[in-house]
Amino acid sequence: MKIPSKHIENAVDQLSSLPGIGKRTALRLVLQLLNRTEEDIQTFADSFVHMKKKVKKCESCGNVSDEIICEICKNPNRDQSMICIVEDIRDVLALESTGYYKGIYHILGGIISPMDGIGPSDLNIPSLLEKAQNGEIKEIIFALSATMEGDTTNFYLFKKLQPFELAITCLSRGVAVGTELQYADELTLGRSLMNRQPFVM
Amino acid sequence: MKIPSKHIENAVDQLSSLPGIGKRTALRLVLQLLNRTEEDIQTFADSFVHMKKKVKKCESCGNVSDEIICEICKNPNRDQSMICIVEDIRDVLALESTGYYKGIYHILGGIISPMDGIGPSDLNIPSLLEKAQNGEIKEIIFALSATMEGDTTNFYLFKKLQPFELAITCLSRGVAVGTELQYADELTLGRSLMNRQPFVM
Repeated sequence: MKIPSKHIENAVDQLSSLPGIGKRTALRLVLQLLNRTEEDIQTFADSFVHMKKKVKKCESCGNVSDEIICEICKNPNRDQSMICIVEDIRDVLALESTGYYKGIYHILGGIISPMDGIGPSDLNIPSLLEKAQNGEIKEIIFALSATMEGDTTNFYLFKKLQPFELAITCLSRGVAVGTELQYADELTLGRSLMNRQPFVM
Repeated sequence: MKIPSKHIENAVDQLSSLPGIGKRTALRLVLQLLNRTEEDIQTFADSFVHMKKKVKKCESCGNVSDEIICEICKNPNRDQSMICIVEDIRDVLALESTGYYKGIYHILGGIISPMDGIGPSDLNIPSLLEKAQNGEIKEIIFALSATMEGDTTNFYLFKKLQPFELAITCLSRGVAVGTELQYADELTLGRSLMNRQPFVM
């Protein structure tokens, strides 16, 4: 596929550098952009540059924020003694959208994954241990992915947090709401049988 | 889904204004961008602005180009008396990648589609008629989509071009190469039976 313009090719290369966007999709998007006014494209381009310049990391939890401390950490109605540990900001959004959680978060910025060359030192762990040491925390909830990497990270953090005498919990594993039992995988089903709960009406 | 930063939200809105990119995908892409250096993001953003400023439309065929006349129209090895009519630049890329076509193109910039409010006056038709009038063309090939809109546009152009005594052809319709016969739709199959060709070894 030889694009007849160096400038379009350049834009396609930039757009297809994003994960999950191939050259063909990028070309479709770029041609759509080309139909817009110069002003609109300037606004489009500026939004990314402004974002990079303005967005900060919350000094307390590592969440993205427009200020030094994010809105969740700043909120006096949230239980500051309960910390939910997540991998990245999208997990925060997912948990927030449930409306069930009233504590604060701690964003690791990844999970331990030797295959991808990510070790404990690459993650936002020291500030978590500091908080635990200060005795500010009563409960820590592990909310990492239910994968081997997630379990490894859970195990690592558990070892580090054990000395501080906190309640350490993790999200329950089990059959997803709306799943027909015959389609649940055996690992999940086995675990949900092991962790069965008292029936409540 | 409440994004905890106005700037990120703005970037997500801009990215999700592209066709086929939803808010969730846009957020994933924007967070990936956020991990890059300020310089990289500036390059990313500039590529779109430069493209809009620099890319021209070929005055002869309507193709995008870095110059006033595109490389295909300028090429002396291409048959200037044979014009292939296509909807947009992606069709040119598709036809070029076959390596079979040695004529030039004429890009309409769309097809007649009353549902989307696109009529003949919105398309790049006058310059085509001009070329036909000048007697520069011997053959015109219709290579529009095999849809009702494509057929309507073919019919409209045929009526307009008929007086000029040119050869007017269109891409053959039939069973796609690699298709198992039982999976071909009946319309295509019927048409490929009607338009059957002499068998050549």
